Amino acid sequence: MTATVKSLGEQGLLKIFRQYCSAVVGDDAAPMGATLPDRQMVATTDMLIDGVHFSDRTTSPEDVGWRAAAVNLSDLAAMGAKPWGLVMSVGLPPDTEIAWIEGVYRGFSECLQTYGTELVGGDTVRSPVRTLSVTAFGQVPKTQVIQRHTARVGDVIVMTGLHGLSKAGLELLLKEELKEELLVPMLIGNQILAGEDLVQAICHYHQRPIPRFDAIAILHKILNQQNHPTDFPVSGMDSSDGLADAIAQICRASKVGAKIHWRSLPIHRAVRALAGDRALEWVLYGGEDFELVLCMPLSLAEKFVNQLSGAVIIGEIIDGDRIDGLEMRSAFQHFAP
Amino acid sequence: MTATVKSLGEQGLLKIFRQYCSAVVGDDAAPMGATLPDRQMVATTDMLIDGVHFSDRTTSPEDVGWRAAAVNLSDLAAMGAKPWGLVMSVGLPPDTEIAWIEGVYRGFSECLQTYGTELVGGDTVRSPVRTLSVTAFGQVPKTQVIQRHTARVGDVIVMTGLHGLSKAGLELLLKEELKEELLVPMLIGNQILAGEDLVQAICHYHQRPIPRFDAIAILHKILNQQNHPTDFPVSGMDSSDGLADAIAQICRASKVGAKIHWRSLPIHRAVRALAGDRALEWVLYGGEDFELVLCMPLSLAEKFVNQLSGAVIIGEIIDGDRIDGLEMRSAFQHFAP
Repeated sequence: MTATVKSLGEQGLLKIFRQYCSAVVGDDAAPMGATLPDRQMVATTDMLIDGVHFSDRTTSPEDVGWRAAAVNLSDLAAMGAKPWGLVMSVGLPPDTEIAWIEGVYRGFSECLQTYGTELVGGDTVRSPVRTLSVTAFGQVPKTQVIQRHTARVGDVIVMTGLHGLSKAGLELLLKEELKEELLVPMLIGNQILAGEDLVQAICHYHQRPIPRFDAIAILHKILNQQNHPTDFPVSGMDSSDGLADAIAQICRASKVGAKIHWRSLPIHRAVRALAGDRALEWVLYGGEDFELVLCMPLSLAEKFVNQLSGAVIIGEIIDGDRIDGLEMRSAFQHFAP
Repeated sequence: MTATVKSLGEQGLLKIFRQYCSAVVGDDAAPMGATLPDRQMVATTDMLIDGVHFSDRTTSPEDVGWRAAAVNLSDLAAMGAKPWGLVMSVGLPPDTEIAWIEGVYRGFSECLQTYGTELVGGDTVRSPVRTLSVTAFGQVPKTQVIQRHTARVGDVIVMTGLHGLSKAGLELLLKEELKEELLVPMLIGNQILAGEDLVQAICHYHQRPIPRFDAIAILHKILNQQNHPTDFPVSGMDSSDGLADAIAQICRASKVGAKIHWRSLPIHRAVRALAGDRALEWVLYGGEDFELVLCMPLSLAEKFVNQLSGAVIIGEIIDGDRIDGLEMRSAFQHFAP
């Protein structure tokens, strides 16, 4: 039988890719070989396909553009890097409405402006399917690169915000009848919202993810006030593929285990209302929240969560190769689709 | 009527893109806003679609990979830049044979190794059509950036090698019967070839384009031996969209005209044999030769063509907005499809 992409699967494909790729550890963004005296250059790239990664049903062109930018910027933030610029290539069927691609550029540009960076180039080609490919470059001081493989036993695990809301937004966009479950006013961000405003605000979590450069800025501020540690004390990644995936990947790369403080794992009331008894599943496996999952010493973490509204310590790094007593693969796959 | 990509056309699309893009002049690669004291960072990106930019009929997977790398590296060379690294994202239908994508990575990697750079990241996604998106980053000393808009009246125009051979190779791949036209042995590179060897060698021009970093190295060597000129004396671009297009684009961006020395414009015998009375058309409009078209003072050009085998002075930059007496638009569109 001829091996195909389908028969090999994503992990198999990744293995082939890695044979040819110089970046050894799979961090959110790839370090580039080029050397500047004190800065590490990083690059990250994502390809988005109509019908796979976005759909007219759930995503306006402006939101497609915003997301395409935010997903890549989040990868830079997850390395502790600041953006230098982005390029976006676009493949379009000839019958694509101009209003659609203009909307995409508008949303993309809005996100870039929000985070102080810019579109520096691109390519526009004919394709049978609407395709966006975005690459972002950035730089990070060499002593402050956040990586996945440096979590240490004794570190605590911090998430920069709630999980499950992006999934909640997606479900609301797909199933209008779910609105009926949102019966009471709820606190979203720092506003109490109800009815259509509440629905919109939850959908926004899916449509307009936020790269957490603000969290990185607070982290750097705290670290700069401390004595210089010999090793950079923070490891981690973003939670684009879900909170459980982020924890599992950090543990696997760092050869450590983790213990989660289930009782202090916050679940938003909207997630409880919409997901019912699957609320924890949405939090752990919903994905696309684009928060940062960071490991650091408790003393640092306490300062960090004090200064970053919404950040929570959710567990700790322990010896071994298990997450909370579960063997890692099964912990990871337990609820996975 | 709703405006579509088809109704707006490529130029219209480009205009929309430029509203959102910070790179003002359309050089081969985009300068990034980020500042290093003495170096300009540049980035370039290309998207390649099955059936539009490559085809199993004319291109092996290894050649698809090589070309995807070479096209982007050529853009860096055209700016005078050295590569820092590349990322490649891949969209694949589930029934894609693994051998195909492995071949692509192999060819890509081979090209990168040849020019001393590396793949640093990428993305792999599901798509209904095989899609490659490559981004290359590089850097160039700020005083040595080659741009399109700085050609000066009195400069001569140099091309680093022959044109039309890529088109000749493509035609041979598409129409096997054309082989019959190659009746006599011919000099290709520095070898005299005949029969199937000759056919292969010509097809190679289409399948394995060469980014001309060697030409840039010679240029820098000559310039470093001279007194420091106040302005960098070289402008230009690569001829990916054809020799005529390169000349027209340089003239338009620099607000100058050009005079071509038709009698000294070399046409390879294979192009004459295969194209017949359309030989000049193939040379001017065939495209995808990925040579550099550079404008510089005669004294520099003489040293340059002496040291770079195959390089030829083909014309000069003149006052005005015409190429050889033709109004530029018609000069450009004369043979265009």
